[in-house]
Amino acid sequence: MPQSVDSPLSAPLPKVRAAIIGASGYSGEELVRLLLRHPHAILSAVTSRQSAGQTIAQVFPKFASFPLARTLRFSEPLPDKLASEADLVFLALPHGVAAEFAVPLLAAGCKVIDLSADFRLRDPAVYREFYAHDHPAPGLLPQAVYGMPEFKREAIRSAKLIASPGCYPTSILLPLIPLLRHRLIKVQGIVANSMSGVSGAGRKAELDYLFVECNESLRAYGVPKHRHLSEIEQELSDVAGEKVIIQFIPHLVPVNRGIATSISASPVRAVANAADAERLQGEITSAYIDAYRDELFVRVLEGNALPDTKNVTGTNVLELAWRIDVRTGRVVLFSAEDNLIKGASGQAVQSMNIICGYPESAGLEG
Amino acid sequence: MPQSVDSPLSAPLPKVRAAIIGASGYSGEELVRLLLRHPHAILSAVTSRQSAGQTIAQVFPKFASFPLARTLRFSEPLPDKLASEADLVFLALPHGVAAEFAVPLLAAGCKVIDLSADFRLRDPAVYREFYAHDHPAPGLLPQAVYGMPEFKREAIRSAKLIASPGCYPTSILLPLIPLLRHRLIKVQGIVANSMSGVSGAGRKAELDYLFVECNESLRAYGVPKHRHLSEIEQELSDVAGEKVIIQFIPHLVPVNRGIATSISASPVRAVANAADAERLQGEITSAYIDAYRDELFVRVLEGNALPDTKNVTGTNVLELAWRIDVRTGRVVLFSAEDNLIKGASGQAVQSMNIICGYPESAGLEG
Amino acid sequence: MPQSVDSPLSAPLPKVRAAIIGASGYSGEELVRLLLRHPHAILSAVTSRQSAGQTIAQVFPKFASFPLARTLRFSEPLPDKLASEADLVFLALPHGVAAEFAVPLLAAGCKVIDLSADFRLRDPAVYREFYAHDHPAPGLLPQAVYGMPEFKREAIRSAKLIASPGCYPTSILLPLIPLLRHRLIKVQGIVANSMSGVSGAGRKAELDYLFVECNESLRAYGVPKHRHLSEIEQELSDVAGEKVIIQFIPHLVPVNRGIATSISASPVRAVANAADAERLQGEITSAYIDAYRDELFVRVLEGNALPDTKNVTGTNVLELAWRIDVRTGRVVLFSAEDNLIKGASGQAVQSMNIICGYPESAGLEG
Amino acid sequence: MPQSVDSPLSAPLPKVRAAIIGASGYSGEELVRLLLRHPHAILSAVTSRQSAGQTIAQVFPKFASFPLARTLRFSEPLPDKLASEADLVFLALPHGVAAEFAVPLLAAGCKVIDLSADFRLRDPAVYREFYAHDHPAPGLLPQAVYGMPEFKREAIRSAKLIASPGCYPTSILLPLIPLLRHRLIKVQGIVANSMSGVSGAGRKAELDYLFVECNESLRAYGVPKHRHLSEIEQELSDVAGEKVIIQFIPHLVPVNRGIATSISASPVRAVANAADAERLQGEITSAYIDAYRDELFVRVLEGNALPDTKNVTGTNVLELAWRIDVRTGRVVLFSAEDNLIKGASGQAVQSMNIICGYPESAGLEG
Repeated sequence: MPQSVDSPLSAPLPKVRAAIIGASGYSGEELVRLLLRHPHAILSAVTSRQSAGQTIAQVFPKFASFPLARTLRFSEPLPDKLASEADLVFLALPHGVAAEFAVPLLAAGCKVIDLSADFRLRDPAVYREFYAHDHPAPGLLPQAVYGMPEFKREAIRSAKLIASPGCYPTSILLPLIPLLRHRLIKVQGIVANSMSGVSGAGRKAELDYLFVECNESLRAYGVPKHRHLSEIEQELSDVAGEKVIIQFIPHLVPVNRGIATSISASPVRAVANAADAERLQGEITSAYIDAYRDELFVRVLEGNALPDTKNVTGTNVLELAWRIDVRTGRVVLFSAEDNLIKGASGQAVQSMNIICGYPESAGLEG
Repeated sequence: MPQSVDSPLSAPLPKVRAAIIGASGYSGEELVRLLLRHPHAILSAVTSRQSAGQTIAQVFPKFASFPLARTLRFSEPLPDKLASEADLVFLALPHGVAAEFAVPLLAAGCKVIDLSADFRLRDPAVYREFYAHDHPAPGLLPQAVYGMPEFKREAIRSAKLIASPGCYPTSILLPLIPLLRHRLIKVQGIVANSMSGVSGAGRKAELDYLFVECNESLRAYGVPKHRHLSEIEQELSDVAGEKVIIQFIPHLVPVNRGIATSISASPVRAVANAADAERLQGEITSAYIDAYRDELFVRVLEGNALPDTKNVTGTNVLELAWRIDVRTGRVVLFSAEDNLIKGASGQAVQSMNIICGYPESAGLEG
Repeated sequence: MPQSVDSPLSAPLPKVRAAIIGASGYSGEELVRLLLRHPHAILSAVTSRQSAGQTIAQVFPKFASFPLARTLRFSEPLPDKLASEADLVFLALPHGVAAEFAVPLLAAGCKVIDLSADFRLRDPAVYREFYAHDHPAPGLLPQAVYGMPEFKREAIRSAKLIASPGCYPTSILLPLIPLLRHRLIKVQGIVANSMSGVSGAGRKAELDYLFVECNESLRAYGVPKHRHLSEIEQELSDVAGEKVIIQFIPHLVPVNRGIATSISASPVRAVANAADAERLQGEITSAYIDAYRDELFVRVLEGNALPDTKNVTGTNVLELAWRIDVRTGRVVLFSAEDNLIKGASGQAVQSMNIICGYPESAGLEG
Repeated sequence: MPQSVDSPLSAPLPKVRAAIIGASGYSGEELVRLLLRHPHAILSAVTSRQSAGQTIAQVFPKFASFPLARTLRFSEPLPDKLASEADLVFLALPHGVAAEFAVPLLAAGCKVIDLSADFRLRDPAVYREFYAHDHPAPGLLPQAVYGMPEFKREAIRSAKLIASPGCYPTSILLPLIPLLRHRLIKVQGIVANSMSGVSGAGRKAELDYLFVECNESLRAYGVPKHRHLSEIEQELSDVAGEKVIIQFIPHLVPVNRGIATSISASPVRAVANAADAERLQGEITSAYIDAYRDELFVRVLEGNALPDTKNVTGTNVLELAWRIDVRTGRVVLFSAEDNLIKGASGQAVQSMNIICGYPESAGLEG
């Protein structure tokens, strides 16, 4: 009989000691928040070169209400020391740097959840193509699990190294995978447009991300070959059983948080009239029910509702909807997520919960 | 020899008396601004049921520095009276209502520039399909000219009734028309995503457009059959010589002004390698040079630059760029405009300038 | 020995059935959120004329992850029915209307926490002066308790009718009361400037609060006699033991949430040099330690930090700091709060927790 | 008979060659815009170490419609070269650095309009107190004119060195000077609160001014001794004939542009009743009429209107209003301006126009 965390009579779940390396960026900050309020994890160490010596509350005044935030200090990122302080380590570091920490931490027996791109790609040649440097630890790639709980739950459960998905990929894969899996849409001609809030660019002192440069500005960027395409296409190709190449157009828009994605795709069976549309409507509905009926963090909208980032920011939920367009014969998919939660730190905590045997929503409730 | 307005020795240009019906919305307000500062037009009347009796400066304090704004009062919209006060009338009214004013004003000899959708579609059946009511004045449709100066300049010059293009259509047609005209892209499979600032929704007291509902919100809407599709597809079909149907996905984003549009399309000749891409690059460059070399208000960007609404808001300029994607074999087009100026009132004033024989940029300079 | 809610071995706390009348405004929405996640309260009814018949999740998609939100429907506000469904009722209604519901609910034995201004003023003549109509239920005023937990905890505990403080008053009273109580500042010459996010205006379909009208706009309003002055001055006068009249200047600024307040006041003992300043510094520190040392929701900042709404939005915390200005001989106080939480619904839930014997922070943690 | 620039028959005004040193910041960018569209000035040189070699259009795409912006390139800031290229030089540089350029430029016969604080203070000791370093060119201070046209027009006309006022000082001095000059308010107890848009912090790659750090944030800063106090108090003291010390509390708020200021002051003659208020109302009205009746760029609001930055951004206008508060016996003054135009570059161009004998509004119209 499975133990319930809700029952006060069952034995308490063992606490995991979790550390965060690189905790001063936006994803790191969100991880700090999620772990401070987590019922089963103990935030045992946070590191940041620039903030070393300061308490969490000094660096992030908003967390001062958590007692631990007033006592736990940022330290220098020393793998040996961290391995003795933590059972599981989150890496919230730039790509390239993350792998340097993963190697010694895994060797020391820690589980590692990496929020960078370092372990998302199975093929080091693709990594080199998209990230412009050799992979720093190709030997670890075979054991890395792409940490998307909705589709990799079992692999995550026993993984030692999780490559937590990117923000754009999450917003694109969750709508597409069920339809590709059920062979409802063609692998050719997929066009995904995404709009991201500015926190997606990270906490970097660059002119491009100043308030005045972003406010009242709408702009595409990173076209036509954004780095996230590499993991998007790897995962879609896995599902489709053939090579998938998509058009991906990201945009920067003036909100703090949130990604909204709109995807146009062609159905495998032509949609030329209302009857075709009705059939496809049923098939897509079934595909999503099949995939997400029991998922806590994917909300398939009904009726006239369309995803809106303001309904998901601050939560680990991705909203999803679709429309069949009989005029073009195509289907349009829509998603909205909080880029820092479901698109980064929340999804990483979801993986931690699975690894540790906690309820998957622990620490991630509204 | 044409007279130059710039020469102080030439005879002054005759002044046109221009009126605005429905001047209290956002497009109307922008028209008021453009006409107050226009060197050759005289703003002779402004109407608004709700503001009747008040001066322009009382309704729009920001214009109080213009002497005329402190004396000219909003009046009730009476066609007969307006016909005696104005040579040319701008209609900044909802669709359906605009036509009711166009009929008597044209009969009285006024020229009419309509910013609504009432005269943009040649086929009243299409109007009924997209606007859900019968066309109020189908007899006027044959004489209406779709007021896009870059492609209809000669027709505009002699027109009595201008149907000024919609904001989304302007942002989509200007990138696409040269490529379709030169048969560089296929008419099938065009996907256009647009993001619009909230002024595009008009000055309406509706909950959906409250600050709190729009700020920190990203959302698609009006899918899959937005009304503007009707004029977009009419104009594209004209250029292509065959029926064009596109996928159009509009989004509402938290800026006051601006539309950014990204369009994915398939080249007619396949792009499978760098040589193909180079050829297409040259062809597209030529098509845009051909179309826009002498256009004051279309700025084709070079190098790494991509359109950004913050570079065009407050101006009548549309920025345009493109990228060839050898991975997908498609081309991506980008545009940015101020939805209230190039997308509405500025383009309408551009038509007025052509009709009146003024320099096309009169009153529209930076 | 008091029972701890944290111990799984203690008897569980009795659950309170709580209802919200007027749950479709911004304060109501925030109350819904706080009660959905509350560990001890059961949200038993929500009412809204315009949303009657819809589930919470239909009206507020963001709450769809809470199972109760998918089943509990908005009903018409019928006091008799509510009295049978709830032990405690929150009134999130306009002033004047709130009192109409308070009367029958109290008569039926419900406890009432009113978020409107109806029961904040002891003197119905002051109510009439500031709210421009006669008080609708003056007979209830004697039993109403001004629900500011930091200063009225004991009275709240046994109250049947709580008048929960306004958003501006909370941001002004919490900094001022300790200094007036310790007679450190003069009652004359207090100047308070506040900046409020747009949610403070409520969810009303009015042109003034459209995105385009508020974004990129900074403006004072409601001067010189804002309604909230009545309760501010009542409470300050109570503490000072003499009539206090202050200058209060509210401003509307383009954020969704948050009030930042800056208050200038004159010390009772002149500050003419560094020694005076040091003495006053000690006295103010003591006054705030005395008042807030054990308070969970008032955070007195140290060092160089100044309050910033972004550190408190989404929480029930008010941040507070001060500076002594030896040049002017005055002291400046600063506060920041979330206008919908500490300034409205969070503070109201804090009162509910006190009334019900729950830990005061139940449902209000980060 | 004075020559009118409007008449095409009069002799044209001589053109001034104007240069901008430090043209890549926000004030510099605004100066570039104002000079590109100026009817009588020729922008002859722009300098910026980081942008040297690039055209104006490359650095500021939004100006690409101006032909000169596509040809004029940023150069290194070499005073000798600039002195040969320009008759008048604007310094848009940090304090301390500006003076280094002013010395050789003045020696070479250029007129200099400095937008930094270097020449605003007559007393180098005050400069050292507020700017924390010795004044770099105290010998030039006697000839510098504080460039506030409304009060120093005659001195500006013949000045060689203009110290153009700061953004906050402009918003505070224009409301206060007429009342102090007419001895209507006391010099003691003045409290000024200002809210500034983020462009006021300059185009600096600092974390504090990132979009995510400023959006949804309201915060006071720079208290209690902001640098701008030095020039505010110098100018107020000059007018009052005695030392004036004020309380000044600046705030950073999430808009691109605009400063809104609210000032509370005590009337010299007590206001205890409606008759007192009416008398004071008349006196203040007269004082403002006297000061601003003929001023193009100060708009004294009437009726219920209060200043709103959205009515002045993009213009050189400062809006002004006031309220008498019979409850507190005080008067409250309100102003709104564009911090980069009336608060910086527009006011500097106004000084240029005076110096050059152009109409004061040349290049500054709506």
